[in-house]
Order: sequence, then structure tokens, then C-alpha cells
Amino acid sequence: MARSLRVIPLGGLGEIGKNMMALECDGDIIVIDAGVLFPEEDMLGVDLVIPDIAYLMEHRDRVRGILITHGHEDHTGALPYVLRELKVPVYAPRLAKGLIEVKLREHHTLRGARLEEAEPGKPIKLGCFRVEFFRVCHSIPDAMGLAIRTPLGLVVHTGDFKIDHTPVDGKPTDFVHLAELVREGVFLLLSDSTYAELPGYTPSETVVGEALERVIAAAPGRVMVATFASLISRVQQVLDAAQRHGRRVAFVGRSMVNNVDMALKMGYLSAAPDLITTLKEIKRLPPERVVIVTTGSQGEPTSALVRISSGDHRDVQIMPGDTVVISATPIPGNERVVSKTIDNLFRQGARVLYDKVALVHVHGHASQEELKLMISLTKPKYFVPVHGQHRHLKAHAELAQALGVPPSNTFVLEDGDVLELVPQGGKVVDRVQAGPVYVDGLRVWDMKNEVLRDRRLLARDGFVVVIITQDKRTGRVIKPPEVVSSGFVSTQEQSEIMNEAVQAVMEALNHGSEQLLERGFLTNKVKDAVEKSLYQRTGRRPMVIPEVLEV
Amino acid sequence: MARSLRVIPLGGLGEIGKNMMALECDGDIIVIDAGVLFPEEDMLGVDLVIPDIAYLMEHRDRVRGILITHGHEDHTGALPYVLRELKVPVYAPRLAKGLIEVKLREHHTLRGARLEEAEPGKPIKLGCFRVEFFRVCHSIPDAMGLAIRTPLGLVVHTGDFKIDHTPVDGKPTDFVHLAELVREGVFLLLSDSTYAELPGYTPSETVVGEALERVIAAAPGRVMVATFASLISRVQQVLDAAQRHGRRVAFVGRSMVNNVDMALKMGYLSAAPDLITTLKEIKRLPPERVVIVTTGSQGEPTSALVRISSGDHRDVQIMPGDTVVISATPIPGNERVVSKTIDNLFRQGARVLYDKVALVHVHGHASQEELKLMISLTKPKYFVPVHGQHRHLKAHAELAQALGVPPSNTFVLEDGDVLELVPQGGKVVDRVQAGPVYVDGLRVWDMKNEVLRDRRLLARDGFVVVIITQDKRTGRVIKPPEVVSSGFVSTQEQSEIMNEAVQAVMEALNHGSEQLLERGFLTNKVKDAVEKSLYQRTGRRPMVIPEVLEV
Repeated sequence: MARSLRVIPLGGLGEIGKNMMALECDGDIIVIDAGVLFPEEDMLGVDLVIPDIAYLMEHRDRVRGILITHGHEDHTGALPYVLRELKVPVYAPRLAKGLIEVKLREHHTLRGARLEEAEPGKPIKLGCFRVEFFRVCHSIPDAMGLAIRTPLGLVVHTGDFKIDHTPVDGKPTDFVHLAELVREGVFLLLSDSTYAELPGYTPSETVVGEALERVIAAAPGRVMVATFASLISRVQQVLDAAQRHGRRVAFVGRSMVNNVDMALKMGYLSAAPDLITTLKEIKRLPPERVVIVTTGSQGEPTSALVRISSGDHRDVQIMPGDTVVISATPIPGNERVVSKTIDNLFRQGARVLYDKVALVHVHGHASQEELKLMISLTKPKYFVPVHGQHRHLKAHAELAQALGVPPSNTFVLEDGDVLELVPQGGKVVDRVQAGPVYVDGLRVWDMKNEVLRDRRLLARDGFVVVIITQDKRTGRVIKPPEVVSSGFVSTQEQSEIMNEAVQAVMEALNHGSEQLLERGFLTNKVKDAVEKSLYQRTGRRPMVIPEVLEV
Repeated sequence: MARSLRVIPLGGLGEIGKNMMALECDGDIIVIDAGVLFPEEDMLGVDLVIPDIAYLMEHRDRVRGILITHGHEDHTGALPYVLRELKVPVYAPRLAKGLIEVKLREHHTLRGARLEEAEPGKPIKLGCFRVEFFRVCHSIPDAMGLAIRTPLGLVVHTGDFKIDHTPVDGKPTDFVHLAELVREGVFLLLSDSTYAELPGYTPSETVVGEALERVIAAAPGRVMVATFASLISRVQQVLDAAQRHGRRVAFVGRSMVNNVDMALKMGYLSAAPDLITTLKEIKRLPPERVVIVTTGSQGEPTSALVRISSGDHRDVQIMPGDTVVISATPIPGNERVVSKTIDNLFRQGARVLYDKVALVHVHGHASQEELKLMISLTKPKYFVPVHGQHRHLKAHAELAQALGVPPSNTFVLEDGDVLELVPQGGKVVDRVQAGPVYVDGLRVWDMKNEVLRDRRLLARDGFVVVIITQDKRTGRVIKPPEVVSSGFVSTQEQSEIMNEAVQAVMEALNHGSEQLLERGFLTNKVKDAVEKSLYQRTGRRPMVIPEVLEV
């Protein structure tokens, strides 16, 4: 059998290949990233969404390791669940490794985990694969791409990246290293497509730094900056600007405080002594000497910023002269809550700066011109756009084709597709299970759609349980039905509406009252009568469940 | 008592004063607009949100009439509910009147309604108010502002407006008329703040017309344009472009078909004979001779475009060479569903143009320079920004102040505020009931938060009803509890988990089994035992309802 390389995106939801993918060759499997997604509005009650690893579990003896490109949740957050099933080593850049350790400890799964630090220029052998990490820029320090030597040739995976010639940490995407790696020719390029529909270049983080500095210099009172807890470089920019303008900085929000602590210890953040202080201390300073950095830029209901905006925060209240900077863009789906948070901050009397009115955020992904540069530099034989919705992959594939990659060598995949590449060409040869898996409560439940469907029904019009008491000998219904209900109508309306429904049941059962009623027949009759009565009375269709009790 | 003018925004949700407001003077009340809102994600099961009219009902004998500024749902949609309570005349521009008639007929409330056509230049007397409509531009034809003569002076209400010197219907905002009206001086300006945070000018509809024409001219196959059913001017642009490039046009989606019929009959749309045709007919034409106009630009799950995107539409399937234009911007909260629809259209093989990649939509509200022009033209003594979230009103108030309106004469209100204006000044003197009211099913229910709160709980982890059967004489629990549940765990897991919970109940009740258990004590004990067992086993907290059945 001819040798082949198999490429399998396993993310499972929305952005293809983003949260997890697998490469397979000569019987060896390596996994790239293991991230989570936050549930969408219609995934009622679900805490987290993780990739379905059924395929990897089925072939667990062939999985050689997991490669983590950077420390963001959507690339690392599934590890506590995945490592319970797959006892394989995890290779991650230093900062990501630190973040993963914190996470595994929280989940009591650190013991037994094999975490290895990945460094540029230090290849790792995993079966027939030989992996070398190379430095890229993204919205977290220590982000890496992967150069993976395989029996068929070199595979380059960009990770999440952009090209920033003036990044905050002074470590730009390492083109010299990449150029060396790709000298032998690139068999396959897997590249970040998140912003493939945007023309031009993504602005440098420096642009945001300048805007933040202007705000901090000019603000008449306190400045609060809300951003992602993982956006270490943004925090550094705030620290630098505060330092230059004689302000001290305090942090609010558990994840912000923890991440800053860790980043300071590991050297990813630097601050002059005394620059960083506590909330308690900051209350004693004049407002124009204060900067507060906080979580809540996505309007998360329990975050510090949202509590501040509604006047519910224990330690921080808005006062006249405050300037609040939302240094982030709402993730699709969060627009309304972010907008409400901004509105409430204004109501409390703050001046608020956000993406629509000031350049206080840039994102961490390459736009079209940067993507073209990556393609030109690597000149891949095969091209598979990853990390994006279908239309982003398609736009990215068109860029590659415009740069000379033949359309027949360009593959827009779906999660679960098994792309098989040989030197003569490639095609999708199989599909493996790759649907999203929901984490709800303590464990991972393969919920399929049954429970979610029921929750959607309950959310719409509530439920009504109708209890019928039947004599087990005679089959006679021995007393009027009892009704239990919630989420349907308010308490004061309930008794009248339910009395009518009970009447309807009694009438429906009247004809059969003297004979033994078969259970299925009885429940159907009750269900129909109740549903009809409730709908006529209220125009709603709650979930109606008859329960027959034999005594 | 000195004479005063009272201004009361009554919208109730989000955009202040947008959906309804009241003016009160000398005992007379007039109402401006009566619109609906579409429920937010956390208003589970709610169909519509309408303003609370408790205040108007309390003073119904003093309400002289309702003035409608234009035909959009968020300004007219509450009329079927409001007119049941308030038997007052409604004054609306011609197109809005047509749309309202259709709506009232659907709700069987047309009989007895007094609908009057409002025309520019024809004043209407309502108690001490004398109202004249004046023409403005918006994203629907026949939009009007209001010049209201009151005993204290002239009030100008802009309605939703922008300044478009080249509108599609050739009827720009009528500044000559407005200038005449305001010659005597303006006591109060109420002006649209929707886009008050945007610098510059809103582009003319003409810009979109040119973009649409280029797309229709160049498309290799069929062109489908998705937009709002009420965006009559956009439809006219598509008709004109199709005509010029030898294509015929068909309409898909019930509301689109109905609105186009009505607009054609009333003369708000014009089309050459044979330009408009049926879907059936269009199937016989070559693809490059076809344009289809459809609903679904907001990703509404049952709309034509969404069904087309998922391959579920009975009459229209995507074929290679199709171009789809989403001629709308997602309303906040709809971003994800719109994005999924675009993705699915790409998957079906269409080329898709949308706001991020092409100028195929402009909105219908004034930006900052246009707002300044309105303020300069009217030179109001008092200024109340309306139609916008708090931050938009604030931004608009700042514009007015920059143009010379004293801050003490500028009022940023909340819904329910009663602003009292006299010649010497103004202040908020009272608050009236103005919370949103939910329409759920057949009637308007004053749901407060009880039912919604229950639905939220049900949506999260479902429910478990535990039925305890108690002997009414001895008080003994005579059989093991029965359990009814939904939305909690999947069917296959259920029996094991419930058996454990039942065991826990039996153990909890064991000590009291020989004596009469008081009902409240019994239910608390059962609830605690079940909640604890289920949480330990699953990490979830469903709603647990014990029900004691006495036999």
C-alpha cells in the first residue's frame, strides 16, 4: 500500500479545525490543539463544548502526542477532558504550559499528565513525525506555528497568527527560522483563515498602545481598561503607559489577577517595583494617579466590569471623571450584552471608549495580505485552510489559487473529513465522528439532541404534569387529577386555568369511568384533553406529561 | 397653576422613547408611535414585547389620538393591542396606514378602528395640540416628522430620519417645509439618536443602488437579493437594475410578497409590465435573466433565505453560478444566525455578498453631521434626544450642547420619566410605569419575572417531579415515590440516576415512616434528598418539585 498523509479536522463546531485536528501517517497519529468552545444560546444549560474524540479513543494506541500552539482556551481548554482518555504527552510553548498546569490543577488532573515545554529550534520526535515549533505573533505571547517533517514531506501549520513587525513583546513572527525550515519545500500548508475575508493588513498592536497612552495621558480621573485576561500584551501596554504618566495599576477579576501573577512570575510581563498595587491601596490615591485593569470585556454576567456597570461591585464604584476603555471587540453573539454594559457604565457617569468610537483594540489574526505572504513564503504543494467558518476557508483557498496553488491541490474541509494526501494528489476518503460534545455539570455527556430539545420546549412554554390516580384492581380513576406546573403561567392565573384543564380531563374520561382503562389509551386521552384546553385558554403549548399512578 | 408641557417616553426596552412616547398639556395627551420589539434571547417563549400602556389606560379619557411617523413594525406593531384599550383615532402617512390596515385585519381589530391619513401641510387638531406632518427620509417611503403646536410653543419630533439628497423615491427630507414650520421658534426638539455615535454623514441609498446594479450586471447566473420586506426602496432599486439588464424578478417569502403587492397597488413601487413574474415562470428562464428577491436577511429560522441556504426550500435551490446578496446588516443579537446562513449558502455553492465584503446596505438613520444640521435648523430652546440607547442619547445631547443648547436645557431621559417643561426651565418630576409587557400566545400577559425566571431554570437543567403517595388517614408513605422528568438527563441514563434518587428519598423518610408526616416537612425532606442525590451524581441542579398525593 502506498504511503499517505491523512489530515482530519476534529473541532466539531463552527470554525473548522480550530479547536483540534489530527495528522496520521504510517500508523502514527499526532493531535494539534485541544480547545473548548463556549456554548451558543440554544445549547441550554451546557457549560462547555469540546471536540468529540471518539476517533482518537478508538485508535488510542497510535496517538503519539498532543501539540499545543498557544495558551488560549479555544486551543487548550479541552485538555482536562481529553487527558482522562488519552494518556499521551502534551508539548506546549512555555507560557501555554504554565496556563495548562493551572487548568489541570483546578480539574485535579495534573497528576500523571506529561507536560513538556516546546522550544523553537528543538525538534520533537513523535513516531514518524518530527516536529519543530517556530515563533508567530498572536494576541498572546509565546504563540507558535509547527513545522512537521513527515515521510511525505514537510507540513507547516501556522497556528493562530498575524504578522506584526512591532509586537509588544518584541518577538515578531520568525520568518528567518520559517524560511530555513521550508527550504526543502513544503508538502502541505495548514493556515489560519479567521480573517481571510478582510483585505489588507491587520494593524500592529503598537497602534493600540498609542491610543491607550493618549487616553491614559489625557484622562481627568481614573482609567479602567477591560480586556481579555489572556491578552498579556495589552496588559503590558497599559502598564507601560501608566508608568510613563505617573499612575499606579490595580487588577480586578479572578482570572485577570491569576494570569497577571503567573505572567509576572514567568517573565511575560514586566513592571517597575511599586507600579502594580492593590485595590485597597488605590482607593487612597488621587483619581488621576490610578489605572484599573479588569475582566468583563465580553459582558460576561458575573465579571468585574459588568458588576461595576450595574453598581454591584463590592470594591469598585464608578465616580464622576472615570474613563472606561473596552479594549476588545465583542465575539459574535455577545454584542447585546456588551452594548448593555457600555450603556450602564454611561448611566453610572463614566466616559466610555470602545471599538466603535476609538481604536482601542486590534485582533490577533492575519488579514489577506499577510496570508498571501505566508503562502508565498512556503510555496506549498497542497493547501488546506483551517480555523474559520466555511466562507473564510473558501476565501483563503481563493487567495492560494490566485498565488498559483492549483485548485485541485486546495481542499476546503469540514470537521470529520478525512483528507488523504499522496504525492500524486489528494481526496476526502472518509468521514469520522466529529460532532460537538457537551460538558454539563460534572462529566462529559454525549447529549445528542434529546435533552437539549426537551430544554428548548421547556424554555418556550414550561410544563404541566397531570397525575391520574387509578385503582389497580378496577382500573377506575378514583379522584380528580392533580396538576404540577412551572414556567407556564403566573401563580395567580394558574388555579383557574388548571381547573378548566382538570374539568376537560374529567369529561374526556367520563365515558370510560366504569371500565378498566388501558394505560396508553388513558395517557393519550389525558394529554389531548389538557393540551387542547390549555391552548384554547392561553394560546401556549407547554410540555404536557400525564402520569398514571396505580394505588 | 402654571402651564406646562410633559414629555413621557414609554418605549420600555432598550431604545428610549423609540416605540412609544406621550406629550401632555392642558389635560390633553397625544401619543407618538406604538411599536413592538422582538424579544431578546433570555425572554424565553415570549412572542413580542410591547410598551406598557398602564399610564395611558389610567388617563384614557384624556388621550386625544395616536400619531404614527412611519410604517415600520417598531413604530406600529403594538397598535392591535393598544387599540383594544384606547378607542382613539390613529393618524398615519398613507403607506403606514396601508400597512396598519393589513395588520389590524390579521388581528381582527380593524372594525371600529379610526384610521386617518396624515398629509404634509394638513394640520390636525387634537385637544390643545395642532399637529402637522413633514416629510423625512428613512428606509421606508412616506416617513414623516411631526411639528406640534402647543400652548407653550412648537415641538418638533423628527421620527426616524436621515438626510438623503438622492433618495430612491425622489422625495428628500423636506427642509423648506420644516423651515417654514419652525420660523416662529422651536420650544422643544425631539430627535432620532440611533446613530448619534457615528461621525460624518450616512451615505445615500443611491450608493447601494449602484453597487446592486454592478452585481446584477456582472453576475454569471441568477442573482438573489435578501432584504427587509419593508425596505420598499431597496426593492425598487433591484427592479430598476433588473429592468436595465434584461432580467425578470420574482419574490419569495410571504411578507415580501404581501408588501410588494401592497406597495405596487398604492404606487410606492413601479415596475414595467412583465418585469415582475412568478417563481414558476422564472424556472423556465435562463439563469442570467433572473433576479429573486427574498426575506431572511436576519437569518430568521423559518424565512425563505434560511430554508434555501439549508437546501430545504420547496421551490428554490441554489445552483452553481448563483450570486446571493444580503442587502441588510444584522440587527444586534442576530450576528450568529446570519453568519451561519451565509456559510450554508457558500456550502450550497453560491457566491455571497454581504456587508463585510461589499457596500450592499446603508441604514436609515442620520449620523452626527445630519443631526447637527437638524439642531442648527430648528434652534430649539429645549432638546430631548430620543430613539437610542442611553449612550446614543448622551452623545446626541453633547452634539446639541456643542451647538449652543445650554446643558440645563438638554435632557437625557429613561423610559417612564415624566419631564415637565415650562418657559423657565424643565425637570423630571415623576416616574410612571413603563416596563416592557410580553405577548405570549393569545393575549398580553403581565408576566413580570416569575414565569420567565422559571423558564430560565427549566432551560438550564430541566425538572424532576417526585410524587409521594401518602395514606390520608395514617400519614404513612404507602409506596416508593414515582418520578417524572424532562430536560435533565438522556433516557438511557435516567433510570439508574432516578433509582438512586428514589433510594435517597426512602432513606430520608425511613425514620418518619410510622407516624403522620406533616406535608411541608415531608416535601422539604424529599426535595433536599433528591437535589443532593442528583447533584452528587450529575453535577446538575434541575428544578425539583415534590408532590404529595393523598389517597
